[in-house]
Amino acid sequence: MLSLQSPLDMHLHLREQDMLRTVAPLTAKSFAAAVVMPNLLQPVNSLDKVRAYCSAIKGAISTACEDVVFTPWMTLFFRNYSRAELIAARPEIIGVKLYPAGITTQSEAGVRDFDAIAATVALLEELDIPLLVHGESSGFVMDREAEFLQVYADLIRNFPRLRLVMEHISTAAALEFLDKHEQMAATVTLHHLMLTLDDMAGGLLQPHLFCKPIAKTPRDRDALRRAVLAGHPRLIFGSDSAPHPRHTKECCGCAAGIFSAPVALPMLAQIFDQAGRLEALQAFVRDNGLRFYGITPPDKTVCLQRKPWRVPENYGPVRPFLAGEELQWQLVDAEV
Amino acid sequence: MLSLQSPLDMHLHLREQDMLRTVAPLTAKSFAAAVVMPNLLQPVNSLDKVRAYCSAIKGAISTACEDVVFTPWMTLFFRNYSRAELIAARPEIIGVKLYPAGITTQSEAGVRDFDAIAATVALLEELDIPLLVHGESSGFVMDREAEFLQVYADLIRNFPRLRLVMEHISTAAALEFLDKHEQMAATVTLHHLMLTLDDMAGGLLQPHLFCKPIAKTPRDRDALRRAVLAGHPRLIFGSDSAPHPRHTKECCGCAAGIFSAPVALPMLAQIFDQAGRLEALQAFVRDNGLRFYGITPPDKTVCLQRKPWRVPENYGPVRPFLAGEELQWQLVDAEV
Repeated sequence: MLSLQSPLDMHLHLREQDMLRTVAPLTAKSFAAAVVMPNLLQPVNSLDKVRAYCSAIKGAISTACEDVVFTPWMTLFFRNYSRAELIAARPEIIGVKLYPAGITTQSEAGVRDFDAIAATVALLEELDIPLLVHGESSGFVMDREAEFLQVYADLIRNFPRLRLVMEHISTAAALEFLDKHEQMAATVTLHHLMLTLDDMAGGLLQPHLFCKPIAKTPRDRDALRRAVLAGHPRLIFGSDSAPHPRHTKECCGCAAGIFSAPVALPMLAQIFDQAGRLEALQAFVRDNGLRFYGITPPDKTVCLQRKPWRVPENYGPVRPFLAGEELQWQLVDAEV
Repeated sequence: MLSLQSPLDMHLHLREQDMLRTVAPLTAKSFAAAVVMPNLLQPVNSLDKVRAYCSAIKGAISTACEDVVFTPWMTLFFRNYSRAELIAARPEIIGVKLYPAGITTQSEAGVRDFDAIAATVALLEELDIPLLVHGESSGFVMDREAEFLQVYADLIRNFPRLRLVMEHISTAAALEFLDKHEQMAATVTLHHLMLTLDDMAGGLLQPHLFCKPIAKTPRDRDALRRAVLAGHPRLIFGSDSAPHPRHTKECCGCAAGIFSAPVALPMLAQIFDQAGRLEALQAFVRDNGLRFYGITPPDKTVCLQRKPWRVPENYGPVRPFLAGEELQWQLVDAEV
């Protein structure tokens, strides 16, 4: 038996409407809080939209499971904000999420000109609002994360007190960069701890393993895994769980994203357990995030036991990560 | 107007049954002859099977277009053959095709132990039968072709008079290797002259651009393109056109292969034309292959004109390469 105190998913996509109602309760079952991404069809780029989205999330969860403890930590979609806007939003957001334009799902409203963002980034630094970044260039897909490190370097040089999160890192290069810059943290997904490009395209093509950033080389995957298992204090679990209906994955022009919410904690427990590092999991799924963000999560104990179960083929219209596979750990009282 | 004398597709998949009847006439319309791959569900690994498959191909083509000039050049699927078998087969095949086991579509019967093939390779060398190789290791998908070069190096050292073809090369590394070894030639596909991994996975995932070897980096693609346009005398056009029904491409676990037969010559003409190298196309699609193989193709003139047309979305159950796109060159009298 493993008891986790207030486990957190520090990078999560919940979408809207029916999809929100399908997936939000699954995260609420496993986690005490989650950092919710703002890349909806209409980006969450005002305080009003933050409030409306937050209330839709809470509604979706309370309808499904009345007494569950879960807090959505909201983010604003990066644009150039005024000081007044950021001061007003600050109490209700955990950070501002920056997407380069067009780099991933629903990021068309993202940044096109990194020379034009300085004023807003300066405000984030001054107001001590974390900046969460999808860090990919528009270059060759295997090189995008490494190429983007130059943007981080510029941000760090110009804004030395900015709290900066490299989201869902996928390369050894990003990890090395993190180690040189104390002001940064990075989220790491479950799937980037497990997959390489081989899993997606080495045999038959597996669209359900297609994600952005794309899974990289064995060397990259192994470096991430080693650092996470070693208890790197600035690596934070963020699932990047991103649900897409099957018909948008098994088609011509398939969407990027892996839906890992229902398997995240059990599979993490299995990975840490198999490495003999179960005691390091608590820091990865809570302490490292809290230390960086300086935030207090709701009290919640989530228990897992070493008992095999088979991952369902579908949750509503979505095929989950590891569908049909047998995992060695499961949530106690999980209804899957 | 461009007149090509006896254009050849020196690497082609025609499959069987209905699929054969759908795709073979499209190749017969463009090409005077083609090297037909032997990786059927039951590998073509005996003279009887070569004869049966050859006659099925001829039947499929003559049913569709009675008077067309087209010769299928047959290959044997590599296994350990006796001298008697190879002597008997020699007049009816152009070469023997070697697949590492499991490396691509229907290659399960391929070679598992490269130490156990020497006797047969020695016979191929002695009998001067070309060995055509799908050169990929079982390593990381982006490194497979480069890793396999060691196998070629061993073959060359042990069999210095063997005629050896690196099929569908996709990397600058293979090209550099080719330049060091005069006894080798290499086929190059249309799609490896055009695509990188970005085209398949840089935006939305495009399963119709998924092939083996996987399309590599811009540097690799550009190196191939430069060498082909410069008229490299040992680079031979082979489409690797490989039809798969749409339902096996737009699914969970999609097959590798790009169906380029109906667009191959028009798109090659466009590429060579845009590079101002139209005069180099004849060597790429005929002379280089003939010189290496020492074979005579049937007389046939294929004419193309610079006149836009739109590639159909489907040929029977197959979505072609460049479906829906407008090409600048077309076959004269093409019925598409």
